[in-house]
Amino acid sequence: MKWTYKTSGIPDNLFIRGKVPMTKEEIRAITMSKLRLKEDSIVVDVGAGTGSISIEAAHISNKGKVIAIEKNPEGIELIKQNAKQFDVKIEVVNGFATEKIKEIEKIDRVIIGGSGGELKEILRLCYERLTPSGVCVINCITIETIYESIKFLEEEGFVDMDVISVNVSRGKRVGRYTLMEGLNPIYIISATKEDV
Amino acid sequence: MKWTYKTSGIPDNLFIRGKVPMTKEEIRAITMSKLRLKEDSIVVDVGAGTGSISIEAAHISNKGKVIAIEKNPEGIELIKQNAKQFDVKIEVVNGFATEKIKEIEKIDRVIIGGSGGELKEILRLCYERLTPSGVCVINCITIETIYESIKFLEEEGFVDMDVISVNVSRGKRVGRYTLMEGLNPIYIISATKEDV
Amino acid sequence: MKWTYKTSGIPDNLFIRGKVPMTKEEIRAITMSKLRLKEDSIVVDVGAGTGSISIEAAHISNKGKVIAIEKNPEGIELIKQNAKQFDVKIEVVNGFATEKIKEIEKIDRVIIGGSGGELKEILRLCYERLTPSGVCVINCITIETIYESIKFLEEEGFVDMDVISVNVSRGKRVGRYTLMEGLNPIYIISATKEDV
Amino acid sequence: MKWTYKTSGIPDNLFIRGKVPMTKEEIRAITMSKLRLKEDSIVVDVGAGTGSISIEAAHISNKGKVIAIEKNPEGIELIKQNAKQFDVKIEVVNGFATEKIKEIEKIDRVIIGGSGGELKEILRLCYERLTPSGVCVINCITIETIYESIKFLEEEGFVDMDVISVNVSRGKRVGRYTLMEGLNPIYIISATKEDV
Repeated sequence: MKWTYKTSGIPDNLFIRGKVPMTKEEIRAITMSKLRLKEDSIVVDVGAGTGSISIEAAHISNKGKVIAIEKNPEGIELIKQNAKQFDVKIEVVNGFATEKIKEIEKIDRVIIGGSGGELKEILRLCYERLTPSGVCVINCITIETIYESIKFLEEEGFVDMDVISVNVSRGKRVGRYTLMEGLNPIYIISATKEDV
Repeated sequence: MKWTYKTSGIPDNLFIRGKVPMTKEEIRAITMSKLRLKEDSIVVDVGAGTGSISIEAAHISNKGKVIAIEKNPEGIELIKQNAKQFDVKIEVVNGFATEKIKEIEKIDRVIIGGSGGELKEILRLCYERLTPSGVCVINCITIETIYESIKFLEEEGFVDMDVISVNVSRGKRVGRYTLMEGLNPIYIISATKEDV
Repeated sequence: MKWTYKTSGIPDNLFIRGKVPMTKEEIRAITMSKLRLKEDSIVVDVGAGTGSISIEAAHISNKGKVIAIEKNPEGIELIKQNAKQFDVKIEVVNGFATEKIKEIEKIDRVIIGGSGGELKEILRLCYERLTPSGVCVINCITIETIYESIKFLEEEGFVDMDVISVNVSRGKRVGRYTLMEGLNPIYIISATKEDV
Repeated sequence: MKWTYKTSGIPDNLFIRGKVPMTKEEIRAITMSKLRLKEDSIVVDVGAGTGSISIEAAHISNKGKVIAIEKNPEGIELIKQNAKQFDVKIEVVNGFATEKIKEIEKIDRVIIGGSGGELKEILRLCYERLTPSGVCVINCITIETIYESIKFLEEEGFVDMDVISVNVSRGKRVGRYTLMEGLNPIYIISATKEDV
């Protein structure tokens, strides 16, 4: 059940999920887009959850490296299972992002799906390690995280900030009808480290 | 100004646009995702407009072929200019889809961005030429086209239909504020030709 | 627990609900708005469900009449319970709209929340009985019903059609965070019988 | 051209508008709903703009009082014209809310459509003057104002906070098609002063 396509947005039901929340396929497609990956990018996935974003990134940056940081042991197990199932190489790191990012020397792309209340410190640590023109993407589901993402990215010195909100509804066939069901809105914020 | 990334969702402002409406970058990212392209896919872009989707497809299916069909001469010119600017190869076809599709032997992926009121006939022609497991994606902006897409895809024998609506809002920085501005909702419908 | 306010949009949790789906408070507020009720309006609620819309209407058109038609006995019971709880007078009619509307002589406003696949016939029957400048509002949750509502309203001779889609998300407080949760999109279509 | 209906959500095109931004009819309907007006409510409209919300409130609280505060002279003129046109009584106050609210003794309902960067102080002044069970509603269009509204309402001691975001799209008839056009998302935050 490997993913044989060159495009992102792997269907949700192809992942092993457990009870860990997962970024939906349409949001993953946009997230990949905002990350602007290269084949050889070094990508860090903070709060990797089920690893669905790490797996998408690993498909594209297959000559670089994907590091998935997750503090929840259940998540760690899921990331490993999903990586195996999709036959991609992911460096799975169990622990707190504020500690584990310090052990990474150089980052080209960082995607933050969960920050455990340490967003400012995580952004600071990432900024230090980001290569010039490196990209940071933050996926938010709460008003407070959106606000803080915008604020901290600016304070930290990131440029070219881009903020979007995305509401996806999915059609469910019921007899001859297509019933539209709303997913939760997601806010995707991205910014770049200046290329000096 | 070539696009050097491996991900879709090229920023809108990198395209030459004129007055032809263009699929926005987030919608392009999801559209690519639903198309499930391979490197060697033969992709047909019906109602190609500015060619923004063709260009995204050409970046990914660079060992296949991308055919952009557009009846509007202004669009044809824009597609050529954009293809040149992004340094990708696109077969640009000026004319009505109902005629021009007949000249294509085999299609792996078709994306319909505009059908000029001939959706049913276009879907029929595409279905005949689609390879097994071939994918058809339709981007709609009107209630009538959504309804007809669902209806015709089913009638034509497509399977695994997927219907989503996507509302994107973009944050515009005004002083210290981030003002959210709504884009038009887009409905993305995709389906597959059964692999018998 | 009567509703002592003059505005519509009674909180969802004030209704007795059972397992019958209910129009959410924000959608009810907009639905009332599109209905343009007068104090003495004769209002028919087709597919009344829990009666939440009938109850809102009864608060405003308290010198007119509200007739709630519902085929599901469980719904009938809920409407009666809710009417009693909110201390409003509603004429509760158990049966199929295509039959029961025939027994009503004159309608000023009709709101269709459910049509049991008989939308066209219901619209025809309502149109015949609607007073000049009478208003018809249809709340839809499926692509097919939106499409058919637009089509049938036009065919039946209604004018001043208004179509909107509404996506509401609600903030749920989790610790210091406000998590946004998406509700299903609702399409509200309204039109008027010409005042000849 | 008076509004003869008992429901809120007066069509946008019935207002005299100029270049001042106006709350759209669907958002006004929900805003009224969240305000929970009584006939005799004393309502303060802060940053009243064109006065569209004041006029809706004046229709319902016609035995109470509606005070529209606006610092922009162009807005003041529009509010007066609209009040005259709809034949409702509104107390129009030209000046800064932080000064003018001080001159009001008792407030039952306050709706904040614009705060000129003084949201915290405005909320403090309103809280002091709000009667028990009084309601405060804030309509926001920026991430920063949503965040600050939630934060300040809590800090000020308001209870029963309710946060929603609303995305409305409107169908525009083009030939036989209904083209959906997105409006800007609006965030509506409401809370109550505890009834001690």
